[in-house]
Amino acid sequence: MTEQDRIVAVASDHAGFPLKRVVAECLAEAGLEVLDLGTYDEASVDYPDSGRALAEAIRSGRANRGVAVCGTGIGISIAINRYPEVRAALCHNETTARLAREHNDANVLALGARIVGTEVAKDCLRAFLQTPFAGGRHGPRVDKLGLPPTSA
Amino acid sequence: MTEQDRIVAVASDHAGFPLKRVVAECLAEAGLEVLDLGTYDEASVDYPDSGRALAEAIRSGRANRGVAVCGTGIGISIAINRYPEVRAALCHNETTARLAREHNDANVLALGARIVGTEVAKDCLRAFLQTPFAGGRHGPRVDKLGLPPTSA
Repeated sequence: MTEQDRIVAVASDHAGFPLKRVVAECLAEAGLEVLDLGTYDEASVDYPDSGRALAEAIRSGRANRGVAVCGTGIGISIAINRYPEVRAALCHNETTARLAREHNDANVLALGARIVGTEVAKDCLRAFLQTPFAGGRHGPRVDKLGLPPTSA
Repeated sequence: MTEQDRIVAVASDHAGFPLKRVVAECLAEAGLEVLDLGTYDEASVDYPDSGRALAEAIRSGRANRGVAVCGTGIGISIAINRYPEVRAALCHNETTARLAREHNDANVLALGARIVGTEVAKDCLRAFLQTPFAGGRHGPRVDKLGLPPTSA
């Protein structure tokens, strides 16, 4: 495990802030280092800004993995997936988190703080952290996700 | 309603093919025109290719809305969200589909054919088609989703 593998970046908007705190605690308990990119309270912020901060941390190599939270997880995952280097998987249970790692080699777990409860979120997090990428036929597909959009 | 509003593009990989067929039937029953971008059978294809085809159809204006399906919905939604003009929301129930429209002005509904059953998918589709964007504070956030990623 490299130093960057030990660092997990977390980011949320105000709606995601309470669940981000739970996630950060779980990561610390698992012996991982948390790179907290905010937000740091429940004052209103825009989820695209939170998503971009996380995507840029992954792209720059400050962390190899991340967890992103907004109200539904939809908005922040869209923002993050603008970056071809990042694969943010919006998950709502352990099964989808496992498959996101096995099939999509997801490097960001996105969660909806107003959609999943904390225990479900913890199960997602555990599956995200512990499940290896399956490789094989999934490899070339993941490679294609790294391509930028075709020009208009 | 413009002509493009009447057209809904659909795309899937092989895992999503059976649910795409159900979705296309529902759209036709609702009096909408279906632009079917494939795949057209259960032979293995790569979900990033299906996603890009759908994103390009939205970007070019061939359709204003779309539905994308793969096994979990995760891979195809990541592929589509590489395109800043498109907002693909991975939904797993009516609530998330409604919020994706109200808060994120989602123009693509992404579904996981191996995650949600056909009746749940139909509820997602109905909410996606019938729910207006709420505007207000959500407008500037959606505008930010239209920005390309910052350069590395």
